[in-house]
Amino acid sequence: MKPALNKEEQRRKAERLRELHHGARMLVLPNAWDAASAKVFERAGFKAVATTSAGVANAWGYPDGEVMSRAEMLQAAGIIARATRLPVSADMEAGFGVTPEEIAETARLTLESGAVGINLEDSLVGKPALREVPLQVEILKAVRQTADAFGVPLVVNARVDVYSVLDESDPTRFAQAVGRAHAYLEAGADCIFAFGITDKALIGDLVREIGAPVNVLARPGSPTLAELEGLGVARVTFGSIPMRVALSQAVKIADELKRTGTYNFAQGILSYDEVNGYFERMEGDK
Amino acid sequence: MKPALNKEEQRRKAERLRELHHGARMLVLPNAWDAASAKVFERAGFKAVATTSAGVANAWGYPDGEVMSRAEMLQAAGIIARATRLPVSADMEAGFGVTPEEIAETARLTLESGAVGINLEDSLVGKPALREVPLQVEILKAVRQTADAFGVPLVVNARVDVYSVLDESDPTRFAQAVGRAHAYLEAGADCIFAFGITDKALIGDLVREIGAPVNVLARPGSPTLAELEGLGVARVTFGSIPMRVALSQAVKIADELKRTGTYNFAQGILSYDEVNGYFERMEGDK
Repeated sequence: MKPALNKEEQRRKAERLRELHHGARMLVLPNAWDAASAKVFERAGFKAVATTSAGVANAWGYPDGEVMSRAEMLQAAGIIARATRLPVSADMEAGFGVTPEEIAETARLTLESGAVGINLEDSLVGKPALREVPLQVEILKAVRQTADAFGVPLVVNARVDVYSVLDESDPTRFAQAVGRAHAYLEAGADCIFAFGITDKALIGDLVREIGAPVNVLARPGSPTLAELEGLGVARVTFGSIPMRVALSQAVKIADELKRTGTYNFAQGILSYDEVNGYFERMEGDK
Repeated sequence: MKPALNKEEQRRKAERLRELHHGARMLVLPNAWDAASAKVFERAGFKAVATTSAGVANAWGYPDGEVMSRAEMLQAAGIIARATRLPVSADMEAGFGVTPEEIAETARLTLESGAVGINLEDSLVGKPALREVPLQVEILKAVRQTADAFGVPLVVNARVDVYSVLDESDPTRFAQAVGRAHAYLEAGADCIFAFGITDKALIGDLVREIGAPVNVLARPGSPTLAELEGLGVARVTFGSIPMRVALSQAVKIADELKRTGTYNFAQGILSYDEVNGYFERMEGDK
């Protein structure tokens, strides 16, 4: 197994990831679910890799939502971080813990896995409810302190789940989302992941009011990448969509085998040598 | 994590897998590379799951060929075995060892992972050379003894690499392949994996001469499933092709994001709820 990053290298990667949130171009991160997908996205020229908690959990035999253990999620993040030269941001859901101390420990272990960024949600696991703002602020402060103590400027992508958790009819959603965003930035977050929004005007308004890097999740119905960039979005991710696009091919393979017993599904795919080649010079080759 | 199978259940699964090599219909196994793909193939109605060593290695950040550690390969097999109700056959390459004792220990650990079948190659790792027949026979005998001692009738798929290793011009290939097959069956193998052949006449001749279940790998250029069944093939697998079909979608996603910044790749895919639903009642639900 490739040794973990040295601290200096990891620091540089974290700084690079943070800079990518402030560049001239929007940061586009098609989420990886394993080492091979991370490698494909690296080869395609993307600048960093984000993991997908749902995609990783499903690949490892679990539903999304911290049913998978923290140890396994960290192992998966480490596998991806070792596979690519790019900075990796690990989706650690709601932090696999309840207290600031527990979640700060998750952040420390995330850095130990080789990742340099982390996603942390502000909704509770397994129920549609938000953490109280003061608690989430304490969590983010503890995460920042722990990263400082570790010596790597962990890029914290603080997810605001107001739009996925609160009822559509709630007129306070915009104010709450912006309020949480400002509190999280103040506590040390680098980017605000405004979850569950696809409306162009709303995205534009949030970006303007938040006044710091905003991450949105793109899916069918979302503005195009050019439109999102025009709205001032700093970072776009895709959750488990890329993993499910890939997985859906297994359904097509099964269909063709059952229907005609032919192998057209194998036309034009990445070759055995090509994919093995992604990993052949990994050892010692940074 | 779901507890390992109890011995009685595992015995039944192994017996079921063996029977599937002797049924009225050919056993078709689109290889899984993770828990989610295993689950898709289970839902599509396939009767068992085989893993792909190359697909698993690539997903975990390694090239094929025992560069991945045995422990990790076993962990991956266990993840797949826990995810599905079907019997699982684990591709353990050349056995992750040199001596019969070492490889028998790999077989024991494979059973401990929850798998009930194993693939074992007769070529050496990292060079195009075959193990001597007497050594491979000792290895297969040791594997069978170890499985007997464990108390589960492990289904041993003994790979014959004569056609992938020896030169095309070698006129002894057919005789050597058949000779190895008979020796391996005598030593306790349940099925012969005749690797590296796609020619219809050759497949038919090998099936006839071997006179026991034969596994072939199907790929573009291979006879259709109906033709393979007509030739008497007992088991068809696909190696890392299904994994690479899936992975190739990551290339398409990257292309669309770069070209048009749209998300048509996400049309018609398995939904988030659907894939999470594969795993939602795993705990305690056999």
